[in-house]
Amino acid sequence: MRILTGVQPSGKLHLGNYFSVIRKLVDYQNKSDLFCFVADLHALTTFSSAKNQTENTYDAVCDFLALGIDPDKCAFWIQSEVPEVTELTWYLSMSITVPKLELAHSYKDKVAKGIVPSGGLFFYPVLMAADILAFNSDKVPVGKDQKQHLEYARDIAEKFNSQYGETFKLPEPEIDEETAIVPGVDGAKMSKSYGNTINFFDDEKKLKKSVMGILTDSAGVDEAKDYEKSIIYSIHSLFLDESGKKDLQSRFTNPGTGYGDLKKALLETVLDYFGPYRKEREKIAADPAYVRSVMKKGSDKARAASSQILDNVRGKLGIGISKVSV
Amino acid sequence: MRILTGVQPSGKLHLGNYFSVIRKLVDYQNKSDLFCFVADLHALTTFSSAKNQTENTYDAVCDFLALGIDPDKCAFWIQSEVPEVTELTWYLSMSITVPKLELAHSYKDKVAKGIVPSGGLFFYPVLMAADILAFNSDKVPVGKDQKQHLEYARDIAEKFNSQYGETFKLPEPEIDEETAIVPGVDGAKMSKSYGNTINFFDDEKKLKKSVMGILTDSAGVDEAKDYEKSIIYSIHSLFLDESGKKDLQSRFTNPGTGYGDLKKALLETVLDYFGPYRKEREKIAADPAYVRSVMKKGSDKARAASSQILDNVRGKLGIGISKVSV
Repeated sequence: MRILTGVQPSGKLHLGNYFSVIRKLVDYQNKSDLFCFVADLHALTTFSSAKNQTENTYDAVCDFLALGIDPDKCAFWIQSEVPEVTELTWYLSMSITVPKLELAHSYKDKVAKGIVPSGGLFFYPVLMAADILAFNSDKVPVGKDQKQHLEYARDIAEKFNSQYGETFKLPEPEIDEETAIVPGVDGAKMSKSYGNTINFFDDEKKLKKSVMGILTDSAGVDEAKDYEKSIIYSIHSLFLDESGKKDLQSRFTNPGTGYGDLKKALLETVLDYFGPYRKEREKIAADPAYVRSVMKKGSDKARAASSQILDNVRGKLGIGISKVSV
Repeated sequence: MRILTGVQPSGKLHLGNYFSVIRKLVDYQNKSDLFCFVADLHALTTFSSAKNQTENTYDAVCDFLALGIDPDKCAFWIQSEVPEVTELTWYLSMSITVPKLELAHSYKDKVAKGIVPSGGLFFYPVLMAADILAFNSDKVPVGKDQKQHLEYARDIAEKFNSQYGETFKLPEPEIDEETAIVPGVDGAKMSKSYGNTINFFDDEKKLKKSVMGILTDSAGVDEAKDYEKSIIYSIHSLFLDESGKKDLQSRFTNPGTGYGDLKKALLETVLDYFGPYRKEREKIAADPAYVRSVMKKGSDKARAASSQILDNVRGKLGIGISKVSV
């Protein structure tokens, strides 16, 4: 079964990303045929500078390689390095109407927030359909915000199939009900846009600052603390098995441990857990030539798959003269 | 000076195409750096069947090669064989807004006529901008119906340049005031959509039928005829120099020649004029392997130009990691 997923190169990874998405990816690559790309073409819809665009792409690549995405076990590539995707975007654009694109929640929400309604923002669902259909994906893990886009991809595939003959598989959403909701340092859902993240690849000083900034109530060292209401506990427990959780709970309920110490304990866990990844990331990021060669292999793998599918699509549309005979 | 032009693979060529467009292309390739492509991606917006799509593309290629487009003197290629164009379409889509695209005459007219408002039809001006800007074209010959699309390409280029730094030349329209208006067999402008064309690559029988179908008044053999009002004369004179025109005029004004004979004379001229082209076309069309090799060379030439420009564009946008260093 082929699972396809795109990761946005949108800056530093945080614990929310890790526990809700990344851990699962590593799992997918062991259990299925994972296709995973860094969505740099999509990222252009929120462009800030060329420098950021490149850095974010490079960071995302290094992050995922360090965290265990294994180019030998999956296909891992940078979106813009597979030109079949933008070519397919054009072909698919004939299978969706403007009124339908106007109804896309994500587009409407962004425009309502004052974001410029660029052609690219409007065509985002068509590019995303091409991302998915160019690789004959069976399943696509989607969050709530991307669920409609997957429906668009299915609609486009169905319309294309009915007009030009059976060509695309209909991709299924992969919705994981158990997804952990990771709170940010203020208790709201951890999210870059809320500025409440703990970025596990930050340097130790910054990381410490984030952890120490977790909100608590005013219970003193000598008071019992309610771990069920504690953000520190919610985050820390993500790393723990049942017995570890029990131990941690007792440090909350038994007086004698202050929030400062509980935060330090969390920091230590984060540093322990991500220590090997942090080391690996440092090594990888310092070797751009290596990173480029790995990503080149990844795009070759992806193109081997998309070229076949594009050949089929071109045939259905009568594109090109490769098969003309007399 | 680089002149860029796209030809629609929309079926059989007629005298109107020849005298208003094709003759000039051959002229351009001798005087300037002509880039000419068969616009098969645009043709998808009026798709009828895969068979037609392929045939129309192949026919257009053979037509233009036979009529003197010389792959050694210009770049001549099939649009879909240069993937840089659809990639650039995505980049440019960030530099135009949806409200602006909604104002495109061509889109509005087509939708008003009941054509499905597909995403592709809507994005036609963005693809056309990419066609032009991917090759740093100086001039683009445009008819009235495409003039606004060229303005869109200029707007997109200006917006891109102002956001990301000087990147694209602003293409100028090449409007030829002397363009011959060629009447169809019914006297209206010769046009495929009016069904009044004389297709000079038709077989002789069909060609004869078209010429013999030219409307005339009811003047008999023994009457003088008004050549200034005659469709036969208007068409025939396109092939003649001044002395040839004088001779033909006298056959109209002096009684004794019937319209049937005047049509036969026109048919003879058409067959004489296009004879060598017709032979050449037959030879070319019978050799798909040759046609493919010529077009492969053409797309290689086009890609050599567009790759350079795309490299620059990608750099401006920070796409890719090829320049990351530590």
